[in-house]
Amino acid sequence: MTHRIRAGVVGASGLAGGELLRLITQHPGLELAFLGGSSHIGRRPAELHPGLRLPLDGLTVRPVTEETTDGLDVVFLATPAPVSAELAALLADRVPAVIDLSGAFRIRTPELHERWYPKVQRRPDLAERFVYGVPELVGDRFADAPLISLPGCYATAITLGLAPLTLGLGLDLRTVLIDGKSGSSGGGLKLRTTDLHPYRNGAIAPYAPTGHRHAGEVRDFLEREGGGSVGSLTMSAYGVSHVRGLLTSSYVFTDRAVDQRELQRAYLRFYKGHPFVRVRRHDETLIPVPDPQAVLGSNYCDVTVLHDEEDGRIVVLGALDNLVKGAAGQAVQAANLRFGLPVDTGLTMHPVMPA
Amino acid sequence: MTHRIRAGVVGASGLAGGELLRLITQHPGLELAFLGGSSHIGRRPAELHPGLRLPLDGLTVRPVTEETTDGLDVVFLATPAPVSAELAALLADRVPAVIDLSGAFRIRTPELHERWYPKVQRRPDLAERFVYGVPELVGDRFADAPLISLPGCYATAITLGLAPLTLGLGLDLRTVLIDGKSGSSGGGLKLRTTDLHPYRNGAIAPYAPTGHRHAGEVRDFLEREGGGSVGSLTMSAYGVSHVRGLLTSSYVFTDRAVDQRELQRAYLRFYKGHPFVRVRRHDETLIPVPDPQAVLGSNYCDVTVLHDEEDGRIVVLGALDNLVKGAAGQAVQAANLRFGLPVDTGLTMHPVMPA
Amino acid sequence: MTHRIRAGVVGASGLAGGELLRLITQHPGLELAFLGGSSHIGRRPAELHPGLRLPLDGLTVRPVTEETTDGLDVVFLATPAPVSAELAALLADRVPAVIDLSGAFRIRTPELHERWYPKVQRRPDLAERFVYGVPELVGDRFADAPLISLPGCYATAITLGLAPLTLGLGLDLRTVLIDGKSGSSGGGLKLRTTDLHPYRNGAIAPYAPTGHRHAGEVRDFLEREGGGSVGSLTMSAYGVSHVRGLLTSSYVFTDRAVDQRELQRAYLRFYKGHPFVRVRRHDETLIPVPDPQAVLGSNYCDVTVLHDEEDGRIVVLGALDNLVKGAAGQAVQAANLRFGLPVDTGLTMHPVMPA
Amino acid sequence: MTHRIRAGVVGASGLAGGELLRLITQHPGLELAFLGGSSHIGRRPAELHPGLRLPLDGLTVRPVTEETTDGLDVVFLATPAPVSAELAALLADRVPAVIDLSGAFRIRTPELHERWYPKVQRRPDLAERFVYGVPELVGDRFADAPLISLPGCYATAITLGLAPLTLGLGLDLRTVLIDGKSGSSGGGLKLRTTDLHPYRNGAIAPYAPTGHRHAGEVRDFLEREGGGSVGSLTMSAYGVSHVRGLLTSSYVFTDRAVDQRELQRAYLRFYKGHPFVRVRRHDETLIPVPDPQAVLGSNYCDVTVLHDEEDGRIVVLGALDNLVKGAAGQAVQAANLRFGLPVDTGLTMHPVMPA
Repeated sequence: MTHRIRAGVVGASGLAGGELLRLITQHPGLELAFLGGSSHIGRRPAELHPGLRLPLDGLTVRPVTEETTDGLDVVFLATPAPVSAELAALLADRVPAVIDLSGAFRIRTPELHERWYPKVQRRPDLAERFVYGVPELVGDRFADAPLISLPGCYATAITLGLAPLTLGLGLDLRTVLIDGKSGSSGGGLKLRTTDLHPYRNGAIAPYAPTGHRHAGEVRDFLEREGGGSVGSLTMSAYGVSHVRGLLTSSYVFTDRAVDQRELQRAYLRFYKGHPFVRVRRHDETLIPVPDPQAVLGSNYCDVTVLHDEEDGRIVVLGALDNLVKGAAGQAVQAANLRFGLPVDTGLTMHPVMPA
Repeated sequence: MTHRIRAGVVGASGLAGGELLRLITQHPGLELAFLGGSSHIGRRPAELHPGLRLPLDGLTVRPVTEETTDGLDVVFLATPAPVSAELAALLADRVPAVIDLSGAFRIRTPELHERWYPKVQRRPDLAERFVYGVPELVGDRFADAPLISLPGCYATAITLGLAPLTLGLGLDLRTVLIDGKSGSSGGGLKLRTTDLHPYRNGAIAPYAPTGHRHAGEVRDFLEREGGGSVGSLTMSAYGVSHVRGLLTSSYVFTDRAVDQRELQRAYLRFYKGHPFVRVRRHDETLIPVPDPQAVLGSNYCDVTVLHDEEDGRIVVLGALDNLVKGAAGQAVQAANLRFGLPVDTGLTMHPVMPA
Repeated sequence: MTHRIRAGVVGASGLAGGELLRLITQHPGLELAFLGGSSHIGRRPAELHPGLRLPLDGLTVRPVTEETTDGLDVVFLATPAPVSAELAALLADRVPAVIDLSGAFRIRTPELHERWYPKVQRRPDLAERFVYGVPELVGDRFADAPLISLPGCYATAITLGLAPLTLGLGLDLRTVLIDGKSGSSGGGLKLRTTDLHPYRNGAIAPYAPTGHRHAGEVRDFLEREGGGSVGSLTMSAYGVSHVRGLLTSSYVFTDRAVDQRELQRAYLRFYKGHPFVRVRRHDETLIPVPDPQAVLGSNYCDVTVLHDEEDGRIVVLGALDNLVKGAAGQAVQAANLRFGLPVDTGLTMHPVMPA
Repeated sequence: MTHRIRAGVVGASGLAGGELLRLITQHPGLELAFLGGSSHIGRRPAELHPGLRLPLDGLTVRPVTEETTDGLDVVFLATPAPVSAELAALLADRVPAVIDLSGAFRIRTPELHERWYPKVQRRPDLAERFVYGVPELVGDRFADAPLISLPGCYATAITLGLAPLTLGLGLDLRTVLIDGKSGSSGGGLKLRTTDLHPYRNGAIAPYAPTGHRHAGEVRDFLEREGGGSVGSLTMSAYGVSHVRGLLTSSYVFTDRAVDQRELQRAYLRFYKGHPFVRVRRHDETLIPVPDPQAVLGSNYCDVTVLHDEEDGRIVVLGALDNLVKGAAGQAVQAANLRFGLPVDTGLTMHPVMPA
């Protein structure tokens, strides 16, 4: 590569934005060239993200316009869905690659989009041009794609957990119940009483006991991709008392019996060659895995599959760092695929554990 | 009452034991008269439980023998199941009331006991004399009962959550999937690497992703009690990053449709007059409930029932303090019923929140 | 007592306000008769404080006026200092007792008040009528006092730690350096980014590395009370990663040498008969004390004094629950003294530990 | 460099050992060639450190002998002091570089060693050959040094904070009081009740309120290095409720007055060109700094100096990740200097925040 890819980050003051700064400035092939935002104009990264006191402090947050984004090779949108929808319209066809981390373009089926994102007006022309998906599953479609939409943090762990069943083993999933548990960073930095430390610390907060929209996203994707079918798929989500990392538990009833041995083999085979998915046995370490603390700060998604002989259900656990594999790391992974770099470029850092 | 009931606590150095000391010494009708244990002999309560520096410091831990327990009215066993099994044999017929907090006598069906407690030899003679159950459901059987066995912490929350469906509405539960999330105090004070602070803090530890034995206990009880039937009932349990309190999520598919309104009414009706069960709407406060932080230190179990129109499943959430309503508080509640005191005697303390 | 004392709480939606509700409704001699506030008008307590679902739910938050407060025996002001200053003017001479938890009337010396509370206009007439102090030290002045001002949470722990040196032993304190460490509930429920869970969890935040105003309050008080003199006294304060409880470390250089034995005796003697101050040896329990987790939810202040032979300094540690002994519990303690009740009425609950 | 430096890690199952594995396997110039230990023989790294599932899984823990360590270029000793003392004797003169992270060889003055490490027999011959110190201060002495001893985690932060005063400004430090606050990972993985999650979470544990031995180490070093003198220097240490990271507060009375401006300049000048020390203003970011959460996972030590006009004292705050700059990262930094690599080789990772 004769020059580094010039990258812009919009939403630089948020948690996913900060994580993009961390990863891009550690990436040998990316150059952080623009910080965009609508608030905090003029602020340096280290003022917003106290860990990031770096040479990059020459950059400050600027508004997103045609001029400020001119000459960029890729823009990462770490913005709320409505903002992403607007910015994508501004940037499409002007910047070679737009990678959106929000929910604006995740759901393809118009009715499902309307149901789960009623406040984000769908732009059919744009929406159809976006390539959506977990890089491990649709990464080849990212090559040279101008518009990329990435799954939500929960959706990434769930989809990586279920895909070997539907796409690998071709199983029909009769019923899928998903229980998601997440740290507080999953909710961003909104100023709400419930997110203040006194109320979030020590909590097991059932913030979406029914109707979490990542369920809609997962179903929409799995049904489109073929393989086994998906009957009912619902999700309940809980906030627990730490900051970074999530675990998804998918309880799955399938149309035919599969035993532990077949499952384990199928998962290992499915993710062979994919460096960021670690298929792990539940008891392979001194602590039970998967556990998000074992992936903290890294781009790994740890997956464990278990067959419960009691009722024949399959239990699939997925753990990831919601700000890395669930957001910024996956976005960099997508950029690597988009620009033809090795998929793990700039993403080889190990988990920081314990933290 | 002409004199206070003389109470002994065995296993006084553990967490449930400490909590019994806290509650008994605040109870107007109970007198703490004996501390039993096999380790820490000679230690005063405040050495073992730093919060409890009290006049009761005259007592020290002593071995459990016929002599040391002579004259007691009630003995609470906060001991591991094998120890409880032995001590119950020693104390039955000698002490008017034995209240066991362990799993030794919870499961009535011999095959189920053997399966879930293979290391606790079943004593059929004793086992059949024990009255088991959540006080709200079987409290009338506690009156004058000489031997009482109390449910596990998870089992209490699950049973209180499901009973209005089977016993109240008479619904057949086709499939029940339970996802339990608990703080670290649920595991007691065993010296294990996984329970050290560096590894437990920040964790979402899938310590029993299949086959938690409280599932066996709940099924055994519900089937015996009649009402609606129970098809498959399985449980997965996770340790999360706080100390005290648990939440159980029961995802239930029933044989016939019931809507939100019918469910809410049925739960309110079922627990009318039971001061420790609070049937709560999910959005009735500024934080989502039920959340164990809203019951911390108290004997409440908060229960919420939700109907998910998406797939027709019923979501039942139960939150309690595993050391109070899940252990010591429930034991005092049982003692109140056993000795004819008002059920909430000594248990009217409010939750401490936030903590 | 022929009737219960009718109590009002203003600032009922805050953390100290919620704690007042918890304690007053557990108090045999107090009746919660009024909830005052300027926001959340019409809300019931359980909506604001999810733990408090109680019969008291008949009450709702109302504005503070002459009418709404008519007939009250005591009003607790759990309001910011400027609000307390205004409300005290409204309520003085109309309500028999006003107990202010804020900083509005803590500092007697006008210059010091101006320095530490520049935004709270001093009202000399009112200020001079307020009785200020830790109940253990000035409790006799509370009897029948119409206006009572209580120390800040840090100031309570510090003052209780230093008083045996100046007032008991008559030592001159040449230099006092105070290092205070507090959980997040000390900062209330303000919506600030730094108080969001992602940033407060895991933090050791030097929020006031110099110039904490509780230092001014302590000095002002100790100097007025006589006994040994106070040379320099400064404080640094840090926010740490839990919710409830604080520890103050006072590093003291005195004018003459005192050994450990003399110190321990002096502290025990000084607090003899005071049920809420526990003078504890550092190694008297299985965890090092004092530690705020050993007082959580209770009105205790644990105090430990140590003589360091290395440099002759005295280390005084004080631990308390900032919402109880540092706020609401101390206020109820003051009300007990004000109305001639036993000092521990309604305050005999034990710490909840571990939590 | 024609080949990578072959590195061995002894004590690989501990927290510092695990962190060495993380850093060495991310280091372009080091090759992890040996895992030594006396327990866990035969275990793979990923079994002991669940985050580290890596190609390095070919290595397993082996005993430390002349044979197993043959051909290594450097051995890192992440072992308790008595073990390090023994292993250093075995490895000295056989392995080109031994880097010890323990306290075995930190204190040069025999009387001080005897006082603070009474259980670690001093070996004068070996002890005198060890080069000790923070790399920023004595790094030039590490070049080609065969035996290197690194400061403790607290000592690193304290020394980096005080050196600009004594070595930079030449100030005599009349009195230094140090208050250290650390997460639980600082205590390693010993199986002690006090370190179990229920007791450590929520704690402010005064585990060494007087007499912490890092005070001895700092004084011994500063006095040897010249510059300003050190009068009394004492330390109190507290465990707080998170896992990784510490903050040291040094309260310093000096012989002459210096103002904020002079201090800030002196610190910036002193650490110019040292990439791992960030001299920061207290209010330069949206959270108060220094805070260990802003250095988590990185090799930074953030330092802030403040002049308190109230009493003329200087407040120096230092924050670092005790497992990185306080242990493994500093060891790799020392290895870089030892072998002539750029000081930040393999250490350029940014902090992971929030975590």
